[in-house]
Amino acid sequence: MTTRRYSSTNPELLAQAVFDVAADAGLDNASVREVAKRAGVSIGAVQHHFSTKDEMLVFTLRAASARLVERVTDVASIAAGGPHDVLVAMLSEMLPLDERRSKEAHVRAAFAVRAVSVPGLADIRSRGMFAIRSAVAAVLLDAGAPDAEIRAGGLVASAEGFAASALADRQSYPTAYLQRSIAQFVDLALRDRVEVGDAVELAS
Amino acid sequence: MTTRRYSSTNPELLAQAVFDVAADAGLDNASVREVAKRAGVSIGAVQHHFSTKDEMLVFTLRAASARLVERVTDVASIAAGGPHDVLVAMLSEMLPLDERRSKEAHVRAAFAVRAVSVPGLADIRSRGMFAIRSAVAAVLLDAGAPDAEIRAGGLVASAEGFAASALADRQSYPTAYLQRSIAQFVDLALRDRVEVGDAVELAS
Repeated sequence: MTTRRYSSTNPELLAQAVFDVAADAGLDNASVREVAKRAGVSIGAVQHHFSTKDEMLVFTLRAASARLVERVTDVASIAAGGPHDVLVAMLSEMLPLDERRSKEAHVRAAFAVRAVSVPGLADIRSRGMFAIRSAVAAVLLDAGAPDAEIRAGGLVASAEGFAASALADRQSYPTAYLQRSIAQFVDLALRDRVEVGDAVELAS
Repeated sequence: MTTRRYSSTNPELLAQAVFDVAADAGLDNASVREVAKRAGVSIGAVQHHFSTKDEMLVFTLRAASARLVERVTDVASIAAGGPHDVLVAMLSEMLPLDERRSKEAHVRAAFAVRAVSVPGLADIRSRGMFAIRSAVAAVLLDAGAPDAEIRAGGLVASAEGFAASALADRQSYPTAYLQRSIAQFVDLALRDRVEVGDAVELAS
């Protein structure tokens, strides 16, 4: 019995290779050939799992998006402190505050652009952003902030905008600036809080 | 005397062609060949003005960036109403509220990603964002808002983040949502205003 080389790989490993190639050399270079090389498998092994490049990209974005959503929601449940600290911790997962998150932000931005032309990508990104926005909104709502959904959308958008701007220009967006900016916007988003007990009382 | 074809073109026209190809088919497809085709000139005509593709991209981003900065600052000087309306009008220039601005946001996002690997692009983007942030900060400062620079950065980042998210997913980010979100964040950014007269008095 011949051992076929692709039996030694799995789609998650290939998605990681796509991610790594995209982070290092750009999403344009994440061809089946390049991904196979990075993963140390044959082109056939990649083709065994993904019949087209688009299929491979969709799988990769889904994995990366799930990872980010999981981290944001994990942070939300374990972060100590009041809503301010929890929100800062959540949004910080999107910011390029270290090498790992910088790579992620780069790949995420590249996928956002690619989503215009590859069917399936837009939907995955949209679900991911919706999950993050909802998690942020839940914290704002719990804290009694009005317009929680709208404010959550603005916070997530600003984190994404900072990430995009810092991509190629870390010098203009040093870590301390990003942290201070997000902290300030979280403060603003927590204005006009109503005691949740009061709100319930008013509604009853 | 032979009329050479490229004498009939100019770099601004070619930059427009790069922009159009990028908006329609993605920045990856903005090759010298494709740009020449779109501009209706020979490949030699493009090469007459730009010796490399990167040079062509740098020129294009510079033109697009200058246009956006000009629009934002024009709006700032002509918009009627108080600081709220002026700021909303400025930030709205970055949002994909119509087809033209959607195209621009798409091309801008693609350039942000490309800036990671093409020298020169990051610097142009950075200068453009700085000019916009400064113009927004000037309005906040005039209005007596504290932390004007930081708040301006957050507003610009949220507009950029909304633009990136809406790229391939206008359905989740309809015009009314984008407008309401920006209006709300402008309101928050204008909190805690100090009468500019008071500030001067305190300083004297």
